[in-house]
Amino acid sequence: EGNIANGQAKSASCAACHGATGKASNTLYPNLAGQNEAYLALALQDYKKGSRTGGQAGIMQAFTSALTEQDIDDLAAYYAAQKP
Amino acid sequence: EGNIANGQAKSASCAACHGATGKASNTLYPNLAGQNEAYLALALQDYKKGSRTGGQAGIMQAFTSALTEQDIDDLAAYYAAQKP
Repeated sequence: EGNIANGQAKSASCAACHGATGKASNTLYPNLAGQNEAYLALALQDYKKGSRTGGQAGIMQAFTSALTEQDIDDLAAYYAAQKP
Repeated sequence: EGNIANGQAKSASCAACHGATGKASNTLYPNLAGQNEAYLALALQDYKKGSRTGGQAGIMQAFTSALTEQDIDDLAAYYAAQKP
C-alpha cells in the first residue's frame, strides 16, 4: 500500500518534469496529479523493467531503475492524491 | 490544430476504457481528462508507429492504426479540454 507522505518525500527527482504537485513543466510530458494510482504504479513498473518504450522511456527507465516496489507504491499514491 | 468537437465525434471507441469524458473505467487505465494536449498527441503517434510498448500498447496500436494526423490532433484537443 502506498504512503502519500513518503511518496512526496521521494518525488524530488520527478518534480523537474512532472511538477512538485503533478502539473508537468512541459506540455510534452504528462500531468500526474489525480491520475489513477494503479495506472501510475503499472507505468513505473513497466519503465523499471524496460517494457515500456516510446516518449521519454529512456529517461524514465534511468529514473526508475533504483526504485523498490514500496517506492513505486508511495510515488503512485502521492501523485494520485494531488488535485488535477 | 485539433478541433474539440470533431475529437468528441471520433472518441467513441476510446470511451469504453478511457470514459466519454476522459475518466477511465478501470484504474489500470489512465484518465485523459485535462491531460496535456501535446502529450496526448505524442502518445497516440507513438502507439500508431508501434514505438510505444508496455501496458495496453498492443490494444492501443490497433485502435490508433487507422488514425490520421488530424484525427490524433482532434482527439488530443478533445480530451485535453475535458475537466479532470
